[in-house]
Amino acid sequence: MNAITDATAQLLDTAARAARAAAGDLARAGTAPKDAALRHAAAAIRQHAPRIQAANETDLAAAPGLSPAFRDRLTLTPARIEAMAQGLEEVAALPDPVGRVLAEWTRPNGLRFQRVAQPLGVIGMIFESRPNVTADAGALCLKAGSAVLLRGGSESAHSARAIADCLQIGLRAAGLPEAAIQLAPTQDRAFVGAMLRAAGLIDLIIPRGGKGLVTRVMEEARVPVLAHAEGLCHTYVHAAADPAMARAILLDAKLRRTGVCGATETLLIDAAIAPVLLPLLVGDLAAKGCRFHADARARAICPGLEAATDAHFATEWLDAVLNIAVVDGLEGALSHIRRFGSEHTEAIITEDAAAAEAFLAGIDSSVGLWNASTQFCDGGEFGFGAEIGIATGRLHARGPVGLEQLCTFRYRVTGTGQVRG
Amino acid sequence: MNAITDATAQLLDTAARAARAAAGDLARAGTAPKDAALRHAAAAIRQHAPRIQAANETDLAAAPGLSPAFRDRLTLTPARIEAMAQGLEEVAALPDPVGRVLAEWTRPNGLRFQRVAQPLGVIGMIFESRPNVTADAGALCLKAGSAVLLRGGSESAHSARAIADCLQIGLRAAGLPEAAIQLAPTQDRAFVGAMLRAAGLIDLIIPRGGKGLVTRVMEEARVPVLAHAEGLCHTYVHAAADPAMARAILLDAKLRRTGVCGATETLLIDAAIAPVLLPLLVGDLAAKGCRFHADARARAICPGLEAATDAHFATEWLDAVLNIAVVDGLEGALSHIRRFGSEHTEAIITEDAAAAEAFLAGIDSSVGLWNASTQFCDGGEFGFGAEIGIATGRLHARGPVGLEQLCTFRYRVTGTGQVRG
Repeated sequence: MNAITDATAQLLDTAARAARAAAGDLARAGTAPKDAALRHAAAAIRQHAPRIQAANETDLAAAPGLSPAFRDRLTLTPARIEAMAQGLEEVAALPDPVGRVLAEWTRPNGLRFQRVAQPLGVIGMIFESRPNVTADAGALCLKAGSAVLLRGGSESAHSARAIADCLQIGLRAAGLPEAAIQLAPTQDRAFVGAMLRAAGLIDLIIPRGGKGLVTRVMEEARVPVLAHAEGLCHTYVHAAADPAMARAILLDAKLRRTGVCGATETLLIDAAIAPVLLPLLVGDLAAKGCRFHADARARAICPGLEAATDAHFATEWLDAVLNIAVVDGLEGALSHIRRFGSEHTEAIITEDAAAAEAFLAGIDSSVGLWNASTQFCDGGEFGFGAEIGIATGRLHARGPVGLEQLCTFRYRVTGTGQVRG
Repeated sequence: MNAITDATAQLLDTAARAARAAAGDLARAGTAPKDAALRHAAAAIRQHAPRIQAANETDLAAAPGLSPAFRDRLTLTPARIEAMAQGLEEVAALPDPVGRVLAEWTRPNGLRFQRVAQPLGVIGMIFESRPNVTADAGALCLKAGSAVLLRGGSESAHSARAIADCLQIGLRAAGLPEAAIQLAPTQDRAFVGAMLRAAGLIDLIIPRGGKGLVTRVMEEARVPVLAHAEGLCHTYVHAAADPAMARAILLDAKLRRTGVCGATETLLIDAAIAPVLLPLLVGDLAAKGCRFHADARARAICPGLEAATDAHFATEWLDAVLNIAVVDGLEGALSHIRRFGSEHTEAIITEDAAAAEAFLAGIDSSVGLWNASTQFCDGGEFGFGAEIGIATGRLHARGPVGLEQLCTFRYRVTGTGQVRG
């Protein structure tokens, strides 16, 4: 990584201290100005859509050698710009997560305890090519009462700047400090490293991007990180699965969108049901263009499939590719998931409630589903309104990270002169 | 720090993998065997009290040059050994934190969501001289369903070993794996460094000890840490304080036990009430042997006091020493706390509810108290039954860390064939 110069360290220090002060202002301001800022920012995005579009064309023109997938992530269309504006309004309409009383109780000595949701403080967001993350992440952090330092990829620098300018217009219109949402310069390549080391200045880092970025952030960060490095999700079709349901769910879990982290990468199918069901499942998916890596037992049933290696079972394809393994019962499925899984999302398809119970208790993953598609691992589908990412760690938050998960809490203890004595 | 050799890394890897497997067994075993193991361990501690006592005498004899305070922390008496046994029985009697449904809801598409408390997995506990931490931390982690690697100070090695042997007797008697509670060798001084780098092998590190140990752990750890480096707690006596209540609370907050992290280190007194109340507060504390570092405004009221520097205001004394500053109203108090506080615990003494509300909203600390002693920052006083430490970070847990805070959670989603489509 790039060495952190004094100038970079100073730049980060200044930005983070301004963010800390802004976070204090947000905490004092309450709900109404935050929501007003988001609505003003949405109006500014609509008003300045041509400028955002032009900035995006500058970014696209500057990097002609991009892969089609990267280019698609980077591209803003009028529809995507309108979706950003709507996203800001949707976040404005969500309930304020700050100040919720999460628990309260009174002790025999009369002391009253309350656990109250509070803003985290300063959040560092590190992302790659999608310029809309600027708006989405800025909005969620603002609504959660935290200041945010946004560091996007250099490929989307002009687009992100144009979007961030609209967020600034919103903050100013609502009388909130502009330092609440800051876009870091992308020219300074050491800035990410400085953010990762900024314990005490930044309270939480959220990386959004490919496995390379997220793994680097997890390995180097001295600041707590909420993230998932990969979503190697499994769907286990149990012996007592309803065949029609299994076919419908697997098709959705694998192919609805192949590039999302909740997409199923591996089908585990019970040996008891595989001879009749596997050919149907493979046929459904093959008809939609899916390719396969299958173990020997699966190939004995569907002879045409390509062989799977351990490396395949350890790969998050993010594409129309499915690993297949035939397993012996629940223990076989759990042991495969323990070996190859990423503790993200796993599903079991079965009509047997006891088997479902044992499966959900036996996995260590953030999200376990029974008779539903793994593609439901999404903040919107959870009812969170919006999400800033998915976490697979074991501390603080797991699964979709929405407004509530972007908060910390504080204890408030009310007495009448109690001493411990 | 000591270099981590291959042998040390291998030792840790073996211990952590055995712990991971044991954690799986604990998760499957449920509540009864965990409680049985704790009760059997308590019986073993009582039965083997003479052996524990002898081991402790070996430790004490091996280190004649210890400070009296260190020697006191290291010493086990028959009463302290009995307290350990009782502590194990108390943890056995607490409700099992695993499996609690923390939230549940159903979405319009019929998907039912549950957030369910789960064991963290493998916890690393790093502590200094108190041998009883072996029993206390071992019991809490076991009850929370996690395996624990205990690494104590070399000075208490024999005592910790004797206590850990009793915990092993309890595990065996209950049919649970001995690897659920492992005591790391203290001869291998690089083992702590290896624990701190064991991301993926250890899920959480909890350090218990002085600021030096905790700061080192926080700085070096690649594994999430729950801890507090110091407890620089403030009591703010507001202009509308009840003088008698202020006197009683401050005496308790400063002197009940001076060595605990929730002890008040700095008195902030409002300029409006200081001329009448400060001499009384100082008189109360001085009569009990307390010494003072006071700012110029406080010395103008109580001329005999020693002058305070910024360094004093930044010092956690853990002794019968109090910093004093006269402040101008709430903003003066909050600005002092922001500058010198450690986000641990602060109290306001006032009869003015609006001032109390503004104070509790204005601090960033883990615990804020109104009209009560800062020494209530304690898991037992919170009603948690027991605590493994106090956390001042902003992620996962803040304040006392009890059984509930030692758990993570998982989402269980139940459907009837839903696809996202």
